[in-house]
Amino acid sequence: MPKQRLLIKGGRVVNDDQSVEADVYVEEGVVQEVGPNLNPKPPSGLTVLDATNKLVIPGGIDTHTHLQFPFMGTTTKDDFYTGTKVKEEMKSLVQDKGVNSFKMFMAYKDLYMLSDEELYAALSYCKELGTIAQVHAENGELISQNAKKLLAMGITGPEGHALSHSEDVEAEATHRAIAIANTVNCPLFVVHVMSKSSARMITNARNEGKVVYGEPIAAGLGTDGTNYWNEDWAHAAAHVMSPPLSSDPSTPDFLMNLLANDDLSVVGTDNCTFDTCQKALGKDDFTKIPNGLNGVEDRMSVVWEKGVYSGKMDENRFVAVTSTNAAKIFNLYPKKGRIAVGSDADIVIWDPEATRTISAKTHHQANNFNVFEGMVCHGVPVATISRGKVVYHDGVFNVTAGQGKYVSRPPFPPYVYERVKQREEVCQPIPVKREPYAGVVSATPSAPR
Amino acid sequence: MPKQRLLIKGGRVVNDDQSVEADVYVEEGVVQEVGPNLNPKPPSGLTVLDATNKLVIPGGIDTHTHLQFPFMGTTTKDDFYTGTKVKEEMKSLVQDKGVNSFKMFMAYKDLYMLSDEELYAALSYCKELGTIAQVHAENGELISQNAKKLLAMGITGPEGHALSHSEDVEAEATHRAIAIANTVNCPLFVVHVMSKSSARMITNARNEGKVVYGEPIAAGLGTDGTNYWNEDWAHAAAHVMSPPLSSDPSTPDFLMNLLANDDLSVVGTDNCTFDTCQKALGKDDFTKIPNGLNGVEDRMSVVWEKGVYSGKMDENRFVAVTSTNAAKIFNLYPKKGRIAVGSDADIVIWDPEATRTISAKTHHQANNFNVFEGMVCHGVPVATISRGKVVYHDGVFNVTAGQGKYVSRPPFPPYVYERVKQREEVCQPIPVKREPYAGVVSATPSAPR
Amino acid sequence: MPKQRLLIKGGRVVNDDQSVEADVYVEEGVVQEVGPNLNPKPPSGLTVLDATNKLVIPGGIDTHTHLQFPFMGTTTKDDFYTGTKVKEEMKSLVQDKGVNSFKMFMAYKDLYMLSDEELYAALSYCKELGTIAQVHAENGELISQNAKKLLAMGITGPEGHALSHSEDVEAEATHRAIAIANTVNCPLFVVHVMSKSSARMITNARNEGKVVYGEPIAAGLGTDGTNYWNEDWAHAAAHVMSPPLSSDPSTPDFLMNLLANDDLSVVGTDNCTFDTCQKALGKDDFTKIPNGLNGVEDRMSVVWEKGVYSGKMDENRFVAVTSTNAAKIFNLYPKKGRIAVGSDADIVIWDPEATRTISAKTHHQANNFNVFEGMVCHGVPVATISRGKVVYHDGVFNVTAGQGKYVSRPPFPPYVYERVKQREEVCQPIPVKREPYAGVVSATPSAPR
Amino acid sequence: MPKQRLLIKGGRVVNDDQSVEADVYVEEGVVQEVGPNLNPKPPSGLTVLDATNKLVIPGGIDTHTHLQFPFMGTTTKDDFYTGTKVKEEMKSLVQDKGVNSFKMFMAYKDLYMLSDEELYAALSYCKELGTIAQVHAENGELISQNAKKLLAMGITGPEGHALSHSEDVEAEATHRAIAIANTVNCPLFVVHVMSKSSARMITNARNEGKVVYGEPIAAGLGTDGTNYWNEDWAHAAAHVMSPPLSSDPSTPDFLMNLLANDDLSVVGTDNCTFDTCQKALGKDDFTKIPNGLNGVEDRMSVVWEKGVYSGKMDENRFVAVTSTNAAKIFNLYPKKGRIAVGSDADIVIWDPEATRTISAKTHHQANNFNVFEGMVCHGVPVATISRGKVVYHDGVFNVTAGQGKYVSRPPFPPYVYERVKQREEVCQPIPVKREPYAGVVSATPSAPR
Repeated sequence: MPKQRLLIKGGRVVNDDQSVEADVYVEEGVVQEVGPNLNPKPPSGLTVLDATNKLVIPGGIDTHTHLQFPFMGTTTKDDFYTGTKVKEEMKSLVQDKGVNSFKMFMAYKDLYMLSDEELYAALSYCKELGTIAQVHAENGELISQNAKKLLAMGITGPEGHALSHSEDVEAEATHRAIAIANTVNCPLFVVHVMSKSSARMITNARNEGKVVYGEPIAAGLGTDGTNYWNEDWAHAAAHVMSPPLSSDPSTPDFLMNLLANDDLSVVGTDNCTFDTCQKALGKDDFTKIPNGLNGVEDRMSVVWEKGVYSGKMDENRFVAVTSTNAAKIFNLYPKKGRIAVGSDADIVIWDPEATRTISAKTHHQANNFNVFEGMVCHGVPVATISRGKVVYHDGVFNVTAGQGKYVSRPPFPPYVYERVKQREEVCQPIPVKREPYAGVVSATPSAPR
Repeated sequence: MPKQRLLIKGGRVVNDDQSVEADVYVEEGVVQEVGPNLNPKPPSGLTVLDATNKLVIPGGIDTHTHLQFPFMGTTTKDDFYTGTKVKEEMKSLVQDKGVNSFKMFMAYKDLYMLSDEELYAALSYCKELGTIAQVHAENGELISQNAKKLLAMGITGPEGHALSHSEDVEAEATHRAIAIANTVNCPLFVVHVMSKSSARMITNARNEGKVVYGEPIAAGLGTDGTNYWNEDWAHAAAHVMSPPLSSDPSTPDFLMNLLANDDLSVVGTDNCTFDTCQKALGKDDFTKIPNGLNGVEDRMSVVWEKGVYSGKMDENRFVAVTSTNAAKIFNLYPKKGRIAVGSDADIVIWDPEATRTISAKTHHQANNFNVFEGMVCHGVPVATISRGKVVYHDGVFNVTAGQGKYVSRPPFPPYVYERVKQREEVCQPIPVKREPYAGVVSATPSAPR
Repeated sequence: MPKQRLLIKGGRVVNDDQSVEADVYVEEGVVQEVGPNLNPKPPSGLTVLDATNKLVIPGGIDTHTHLQFPFMGTTTKDDFYTGTKVKEEMKSLVQDKGVNSFKMFMAYKDLYMLSDEELYAALSYCKELGTIAQVHAENGELISQNAKKLLAMGITGPEGHALSHSEDVEAEATHRAIAIANTVNCPLFVVHVMSKSSARMITNARNEGKVVYGEPIAAGLGTDGTNYWNEDWAHAAAHVMSPPLSSDPSTPDFLMNLLANDDLSVVGTDNCTFDTCQKALGKDDFTKIPNGLNGVEDRMSVVWEKGVYSGKMDENRFVAVTSTNAAKIFNLYPKKGRIAVGSDADIVIWDPEATRTISAKTHHQANNFNVFEGMVCHGVPVATISRGKVVYHDGVFNVTAGQGKYVSRPPFPPYVYERVKQREEVCQPIPVKREPYAGVVSATPSAPR
Repeated sequence: MPKQRLLIKGGRVVNDDQSVEADVYVEEGVVQEVGPNLNPKPPSGLTVLDATNKLVIPGGIDTHTHLQFPFMGTTTKDDFYTGTKVKEEMKSLVQDKGVNSFKMFMAYKDLYMLSDEELYAALSYCKELGTIAQVHAENGELISQNAKKLLAMGITGPEGHALSHSEDVEAEATHRAIAIANTVNCPLFVVHVMSKSSARMITNARNEGKVVYGEPIAAGLGTDGTNYWNEDWAHAAAHVMSPPLSSDPSTPDFLMNLLANDDLSVVGTDNCTFDTCQKALGKDDFTKIPNGLNGVEDRMSVVWEKGVYSGKMDENRFVAVTSTNAAKIFNLYPKKGRIAVGSDADIVIWDPEATRTISAKTHHQANNFNVFEGMVCHGVPVATISRGKVVYHDGVFNVTAGQGKYVSRPPFPPYVYERVKQREEVCQPIPVKREPYAGVVSATPSAPR
């Protein structure tokens, strides 16, 4: 069988540190050469993609829950910490299955919600095993109480979802997770950071030297929670997710600034779509509306439009937040997250000048609603290459089911853990040297003077 | 029996809003007149105190736990919420016993520590009853874990107390208590605010309009946690209390600035003293050192020295934070907390020019250690008057046991509750008016397009 | 001539520290008695106002520039610092004319704008004289540059006013003024605080112990700068003032929270109205639109509606921010700012339950536009009493020109200056005691080793 | 003449994004190959350096003022903006001399200090030319006034330097510089960030999306301003620089956290040493003490010790802040700041396990004092390679005067300017479309209603 060979010609290769005009030559799914005017021999059997005036960027990595490569459906739910898992099971997942992240819930009372004691234990194991501890940071107790109260007041629509998941609820849990993680000296990854308050908690923690990463999501950067007050129930319900989109319309801008500035680290989607019929399960009770919205397909476009086109970040930072940082955090770098000799050929050819209008009418997801409906985006993917194979080009998909490949991720990613290990070693408290106390010991006060 | 009559002559009457040169005339424990050159008739049976060049200030109110008038030992432990108390018991305390505050613990795991669910319930009752919800804000779970770890590392001395009660531990619980209280729309009173982080949480909450009060204590304003590293075990142990004194020596100054600025509201002491023999119960294990330190006797002097003498606050703000604000918060104003016609004659005559040196050798408490040892304080009390009776004058006490009087405090202090009631009324969410959803409801996605 | 006598019956007297049900009896413009069921003799010649179910509150004090009592036109422009005034002139105004505040401009380049050197000198004099230094805090240089650039871009409408006076421009000058004032140890009063950034600067400074007061204005609490983008030129132009209303619609709420919390101190208006014909002087160039908008008439209503009715502050804090604090800061307390025996009878009878709709159609100002047009306000003044004389009652005015009375204000208001004087005394740096340097002194390095 | 060839064997190559075990092969000053087990032919004429167990890192770039490569004395003072320079001169420096940064002073009144108007103009030119605008951010007016006052009070020693250059003075100018730069849309580089307040201003600005870089210096990260109060005059004077070292001893830690977190970007030294005899010019007047202290020689060691060894940053971030970021900001990347094929062979071989004690007795600078005296540092340079030539190895220098090479730096560094250019294009305000105003225009109010 002949070798799979690919040449991407004439583009501008954009990594997180710089951009250069260069061709990219790929064999068997791995980048072999990056440079001007490549001319790989023999010409036969070579697929050539023209990238003139286009950007050649590392394939996006959607960080939510764990790594899910775009257009590939293989995911694993193995790395989900429920509180019933014991240390040995976690250890086996890490050592035998290549799992290096676990997700913990502070929300969903009586279901997934961990107590502080459980969370402390879970984070302790995570650190010991060298994994990334992901938390869904919302105070489940408060959500539950709020929901009860709102339903009793006759508020049953999607606005009740937003009201019960108030900004306080998210900020509280974020702050608490950070406090616990820092006590344990465990790196923390806060998934779907949706509010200013929560993002500020992360920013402050990082400023104090704590090892915390925050992940805003495409929907949180591209739209907002005023939609929960929409008079069309289906419209409002389509936006239901947890934590909810912020009802403060200046939040997306705020989060994007922090993402540009590396106070937030990566963009996820928490992609999880339900159509209107499914959402309608909660038509009389907002707590029954299935949580989730789309995002995976439009993630890169939304970040480009709101981040790069708006002048908040450059194309290199775009690559960092959509791909490189995730690869570093989840220990896949530089195999993933970079276009360089030896890296996997997960590549997107991106036309920064083209525009498209996002719509449920044209998107490729099964869902009948798109939270970005009508958004005009600069920046359109022209082709997508997965381990050297062109899986999408000019509107045509070429994917077969089962083509995704599970990527084993070793523990102790240096990007995250080097500091942690050093602190473990040099920042331990030491006892004060003292003469032993030699006086009387008594439960009652000595005689008064 | 003749009427008890008292004239304080020639002083400067200092209330929280202004100071005036005036005499104060008292009958039967109540202020009858405030004005220049009073000359009450008949002269016989009149006790006269000369206050020339002195300040005449409202008696200090130590807010900790509940109101404890200086030099009087009557206290009640009735208002202490353990989680076992049910609503009816609380109601009875409020309605029959004049209790209007309850203290809740987030620390002391497996003992007093309330879960979020219990705290939510407790705060809900507090609001319904119109009482002040006081919290000891430290995360008991983290303290317990930290202590275990430190003891295992061989850290058994008082520095272990400070290390296990880290600043994060206090700030976390403070932030969580605020979030829960705000969800309930219950006013919150955070006792013994000891760290910058915790104080910042309170400041931020107040800036956002939340009804929160913070109480620093005399020790936290006058000394710091570097003492836990003192090489004399007894010295270090004498400073053990929870939350601990901050190990950051710039904290007292920071807290005093916020107190001057009304981000913090009142000064307490959490006075609770153990002598060295008692402290020695924890000589081999810091978790066994009885928690508590002195303060009640020196509270006013420390606040005057570090607050007024230093130029951070004026004499009127001094009265506000040592007396008036507590009276307002605990619904005793203007009977307490102000020198005005009709108010109780709880009065201190204060010499702002005199100085004294605080020392265990000269203090009046039974304890053999004073955390303010050696502090030179401007501002010395010359006389103390309790409901018209001179209980201390020029170094001589004149108190009889049982002389203290329990003060019944009605619920719903307007200073605290007016805003809360108004919000309850006008800030309720209202449902969005919508056409009912009329489409299909289905647990599974509809057929793909 | 018979004595002027007035009895206000059956109301609820609201001061900044408490509210009591009480009658108020006034003679010759001064409050004689406050208490229940007053029955002053003789009944003849007594004006009686029924205040049943009404609030009896101290007359509002509008702080802007200096004290202007409502409905009285007497103002003085004497206390306006232009940089040409020398110390002697300022001294004479203070000592001979009862002026105790001076206003300085950091805006209006080439007109009023002071350099840092001039501002330093002015603030130094202010402190020496014991006066309140007021600053209009905007960076005049940046405004001028911005305006030039915007006009060159073809932006000539009122939105250009908002764009040229960006939030940065206000925050920069506020921060600078605070730095200079603090260096001089001079109390600072920042007039018309319009933006979040500027308010944060003041809040931070106060938290650090700096003596700074911030004054939001009625318009900044009741409306916002999105009006500058209104498509009706006259509407947009009517809102032009400096600093401009904030274009962030969440600003009014933010400022009101800080006002409730005493991070901001008093409410002014900067009342200065021009009608549409006058505003039209700038129809082709926003820099020529006369700066100013209404407010004085609706100030109390707007603060009540947005502050008290909304549950952000109680009626006592309302009195503090509309009257008492201004009286304290400008050294008129307790003659002004309080209803108590001996205070001036400047009183408003306020119906907290009544509502009215603000409109240019019904207001009493000459202006044809009202920036609060259509706002429904709870809280309506029923009567206004100026030094014992009823100048307004139930819709009828009874004012004669020249009736206003200039109030002499002594320097060194204790509320502001006590701390300042104490700091001057005890917080001075002292030189380090050292042996004199005895070695070689040389402009060139000594020979290398 | 034979080619200069060098092989660095067995080390761990550390770039800012990752570390790999690899050899580095250099020819004619340029890296030719990076990879395991390199074996370049022919063996003759090849210098081989053993780096087993050592780190191979990009040569440090000291950012202060402009790029100064360690151990090389060539510097240019051309890029220093005095306010007398006109646009044409700046343009010529950029276009003809390869200068891409200009330094502006807000301090040094009557000497270098620019007014806001001049600074606005300078920053406008800087942006137009695509250069990095560096500012020395201290308010010269306040320094001058403070100094005068302190000298008059008899404070003549080095503590007067610290007192006159208060934290406010630095924070004020930093904030103002940011406001002006942001108005102009010009990237800003704040040199020698010395205080928490100033660093916070930069952090806040970055969080809001402003393009600002902050440079702490080695001395600010390794020691503090308590030294100004040292009783030995020479010791105190040796620390005099502007802005001064912070008198708050927790500042170095604070700055290092922000440096680790990318709120601060690079480490400079502002190296400028005077010996005691020279410092003694100010023995009777602190304003006459020559400003400057050492740092260049110990910069990398101090950052390693306080940053990496302490666990605040990993080795990759160390490379970023000592080399890569500077190369990116000053447009030298990836020729400088990275060890990769094609980059200049400016390399340091670093022993992370070795320790040394910094001392004036052993350092290589001519100065007789070292502000880091006695600091034990992990991390010692074993060899330094400048463009392929070993200039230092195992304690032996091999440098010839004039060997330094001036590096031309093109304008518009993409790392800095991409966002700026995009904003220039898409973030321009647009006028509101309105009907022209058609009414009366009048300087006087129209007739009252």
